[in-house]
Amino acid sequence: MTTTSTTTDPRTTGPVGYSLPLSPSGHSSMLTPPPWHFTGEVVMVEYRVDPDAAAAFLPPGLSPGADPGAAAAVFAEWQWCSANGAELADPGRSQFAEFLILLSCEFEGRPMARSPFAWVDHPVPMVRGWVQGMPKQLGVVHQSRATTVGGHGPRLAEGGTFAGALSVDGHRAAEASVTLTGQVEGPPLLHDVPLAHTLAFPDWAGTGETRGHLVASEVTGVEFSPIWTGDASLRLFDGPGADFAALAPLEVGRGYVFSYAETLVGGKLLRPGAGSPSPTSP
Amino acid sequence: MTTTSTTTDPRTTGPVGYSLPLSPSGHSSMLTPPPWHFTGEVVMVEYRVDPDAAAAFLPPGLSPGADPGAAAAVFAEWQWCSANGAELADPGRSQFAEFLILLSCEFEGRPMARSPFAWVDHPVPMVRGWVQGMPKQLGVVHQSRATTVGGHGPRLAEGGTFAGALSVDGHRAAEASVTLTGQVEGPPLLHDVPLAHTLAFPDWAGTGETRGHLVASEVTGVEFSPIWTGDASLRLFDGPGADFAALAPLEVGRGYVFSYAETLVGGKLLRPGAGSPSPTSP
Amino acid sequence: MTTTSTTTDPRTTGPVGYSLPLSPSGHSSMLTPPPWHFTGEVVMVEYRVDPDAAAAFLPPGLSPGADPGAAAAVFAEWQWCSANGAELADPGRSQFAEFLILLSCEFEGRPMARSPFAWVDHPVPMVRGWVQGMPKQLGVVHQSRATTVGGHGPRLAEGGTFAGALSVDGHRAAEASVTLTGQVEGPPLLHDVPLAHTLAFPDWAGTGETRGHLVASEVTGVEFSPIWTGDASLRLFDGPGADFAALAPLEVGRGYVFSYAETLVGGKLLRPGAGSPSPTSP
Amino acid sequence: MTTTSTTTDPRTTGPVGYSLPLSPSGHSSMLTPPPWHFTGEVVMVEYRVDPDAAAAFLPPGLSPGADPGAAAAVFAEWQWCSANGAELADPGRSQFAEFLILLSCEFEGRPMARSPFAWVDHPVPMVRGWVQGMPKQLGVVHQSRATTVGGHGPRLAEGGTFAGALSVDGHRAAEASVTLTGQVEGPPLLHDVPLAHTLAFPDWAGTGETRGHLVASEVTGVEFSPIWTGDASLRLFDGPGADFAALAPLEVGRGYVFSYAETLVGGKLLRPGAGSPSPTSP
Repeated sequence: MTTTSTTTDPRTTGPVGYSLPLSPSGHSSMLTPPPWHFTGEVVMVEYRVDPDAAAAFLPPGLSPGADPGAAAAVFAEWQWCSANGAELADPGRSQFAEFLILLSCEFEGRPMARSPFAWVDHPVPMVRGWVQGMPKQLGVVHQSRATTVGGHGPRLAEGGTFAGALSVDGHRAAEASVTLTGQVEGPPLLHDVPLAHTLAFPDWAGTGETRGHLVASEVTGVEFSPIWTGDASLRLFDGPGADFAALAPLEVGRGYVFSYAETLVGGKLLRPGAGSPSPTSP
Repeated sequence: MTTTSTTTDPRTTGPVGYSLPLSPSGHSSMLTPPPWHFTGEVVMVEYRVDPDAAAAFLPPGLSPGADPGAAAAVFAEWQWCSANGAELADPGRSQFAEFLILLSCEFEGRPMARSPFAWVDHPVPMVRGWVQGMPKQLGVVHQSRATTVGGHGPRLAEGGTFAGALSVDGHRAAEASVTLTGQVEGPPLLHDVPLAHTLAFPDWAGTGETRGHLVASEVTGVEFSPIWTGDASLRLFDGPGADFAALAPLEVGRGYVFSYAETLVGGKLLRPGAGSPSPTSP
Repeated sequence: MTTTSTTTDPRTTGPVGYSLPLSPSGHSSMLTPPPWHFTGEVVMVEYRVDPDAAAAFLPPGLSPGADPGAAAAVFAEWQWCSANGAELADPGRSQFAEFLILLSCEFEGRPMARSPFAWVDHPVPMVRGWVQGMPKQLGVVHQSRATTVGGHGPRLAEGGTFAGALSVDGHRAAEASVTLTGQVEGPPLLHDVPLAHTLAFPDWAGTGETRGHLVASEVTGVEFSPIWTGDASLRLFDGPGADFAALAPLEVGRGYVFSYAETLVGGKLLRPGAGSPSPTSP
Repeated sequence: MTTTSTTTDPRTTGPVGYSLPLSPSGHSSMLTPPPWHFTGEVVMVEYRVDPDAAAAFLPPGLSPGADPGAAAAVFAEWQWCSANGAELADPGRSQFAEFLILLSCEFEGRPMARSPFAWVDHPVPMVRGWVQGMPKQLGVVHQSRATTVGGHGPRLAEGGTFAGALSVDGHRAAEASVTLTGQVEGPPLLHDVPLAHTLAFPDWAGTGETRGHLVASEVTGVEFSPIWTGDASLRLFDGPGADFAALAPLEVGRGYVFSYAETLVGGKLLRPGAGSPSPTSP
């Protein structure tokens, strides 16, 4: 798999860059080219959604699959960097928080996940989401952090409670919590299947381009910490609109708290018979 | 000129929308389709930039034109709405502040402006900028507002001082001020010519799409208030990087303070012999 | 009336300042000493609150007065400066937005207003509120701005609609709108009477100080623009808690849109027989 | 040691609360009464400051002590809760980030620390700082977080690099980094001595109150994780003004990364002969 490091043809003159803004050196680009390395802390709640509501979010090519109505709400706090690691020196650039919904689905019989909604609190991962076809918007996201000292913050131990909250446009949009009961073998399913996005971007100038390609991201270096599980709560509010509210939980399942790392190396069109790659998140 | 209201083919099933997020109703889309109506307050400073530095930001098809090195720094506070005006009921959605640099240029002999850098303080106009090929990023933008009562705030009158400031990623990036001396006939040139952008978006999945089309936006309903002018100051700092700093002023010209309205109706590819449309900003 | 420009005795050595942080020069102080000059744009809605709920917010010394249950919700966008005007050169420091509730009351038979809740979007006016005994917290506040060009933004004319919205801790807390029908003589009553605050600050070290003085602020230079009025809507939400929600409107009255300026010169204890000063807001 | 849970006399009628806003139930108070439980992650750099510059920040009663010019810059990410733990259920309320400067000093021969400047990113700990006499302002603070998975984020291990950055009013104010070399016995000195603050609040109404009491905070439940140390860098910028810039490093010492917990139970006036309590931070 290869990635292209500029969107402009190097044989022409003019400003260059992996993304806008284009500039003489290419260093003004808002986005760096992949690979992007991610490591983060995850608070995740499995739940059941109305299968018809979920199906209405699946584009042609994806089907509800073996477990229609399986869904998850995921809070994550990420640190990321490009190939040269430069962002890590400036934590205001390398960190962001994320909330996303995952719906169970299949592509040609292979289990995948679809993210109908996602919010992050930093513009770079937001736009980078659109590059991948992942519908990231800007929100305010907070989640509990595991502590190792003191008697009051949450511990990665039985009884530790981890909460998450999302606000969008000044309205509360989601709340979740997980109270740990123990560890489990293996990660929760919806965090361990590929994400299938739709590359779609408004066609401003009538070029006919970017009108909805089904695509999956390719990742390497996936690593999970031990997986804690527990009893969970989840509420979705209707601030983001009726389509979002249609994905509210009918039943709340298990919660999970774990650390996760991956390297996002590129995207691949999901074409009939072409298969699909390993999991992805940020 | 026509605009397409969805990026997905209405003949297929699946979620729809003018932009991501796609959803069953299409109402979850982050962006509404054009037309978009804008009205705003502008504080603008004309200045001279190194002509070679400016030329290095021009893509193939654009030339420096008759006045190489003519540039402007523009602060603006906007209110906007879609065709149905809905955003105006929620001022947190309908308002944003913007800073942008304009460079004088020509397309096939016609005067135009190129915006190498722009920042807004709201994610919707940021992504909408990318739809147009305008390189908007997220920043913190403030500018003085005209007052009509009290003895201390700026008045639209001789001696009134209007300031603007931009910070990016926690670094100060630009500062400007204009102290009014009187009114002038007609708007400043660089705010009255079309903007020529480059539609470019990282090609995540190797489709070969969106690799750098030169495009101009089409606007209607342009309206200027009386134009105040005055003595100006302008500083650009190097926080946004060396390419940005290369556009720092060699000489600062006149400043301007005025109100401006337009309706942005669509985009048009700039192809040899095809001409180009009327001015645009937000 | 006199004001003291430092909290520390100039005869001692050590760092000085009008407020924390104290420093060798005194210039590190977060707050400047009064006078503070304000000019702003106001969107205000009169309404009726449960008189018992309002009375429960009045401290000893204040009584409900002649019109118990008269209340107002006020959105304002301010520009301010200290005596030397320095803040105006940096609009990010000189501007803030505010939302506050006003309750009708009396001190010794004199009409006054009590603000049980207020939010601003900048820390300097927040702490400055506490200096005055005004309970300002940090929130996200937006309101429509009057436009003079374009066909879609609100105009100061019949039919112009001005909206306001407050969010607190990621929850929507208040929404209001005013659709103009004409002008009226004289400002709305609750914006034209003194505010009576309670100077109260947690007594961290058991000094017995600052345990609840009734105080009014003294202002000069009050100026109103022509006053527009219109039909109004107002909603308060329960995000800020049950005490706030108890002040929700039983009936919504007239709305007002106007500009207002004042200079806040100092505070005065409200003691029996001592009288009280002219109006105040920010 | 006792703390008072309301600032108003319970024998009077009227609204109550530990702090403004006062309300019928007292639940609208912005601050809860102590105790406040804190647990956090610290990135700290010891450095040398001009001893005369440091001495100019010490109020009467504090002396430079045995090691004049010893200073530290501290980044911390905190989670906190009140006695009932309620804030932990809403991580947007229980979390904040902090940057502060510490200067070595003595009170009656006992080693203490003075914080001339501090910034947090949440209004509640900001105002709570003022309650203690700690000069907290609002800023944007970021620091690296320890990771346990993936090959690119910082690990609590030799070679792990932890960075911190502070921006104030859109200007970069401080940057630091620590690259770990190993563990040490015992915490860095300036994080293990009491903080001596000055209770000072503008005397708005001429009551003569709160004009500069020297005070220390009393803490219990102090807990340190193992202490990592390493090579450090530190830069202070002049955005916050000349008094802040006077505390820039002459020499940068060791860096430290550790977790820390404490419970802040109350404040105590530092009077001659009265002694002083155990360490404090948030």
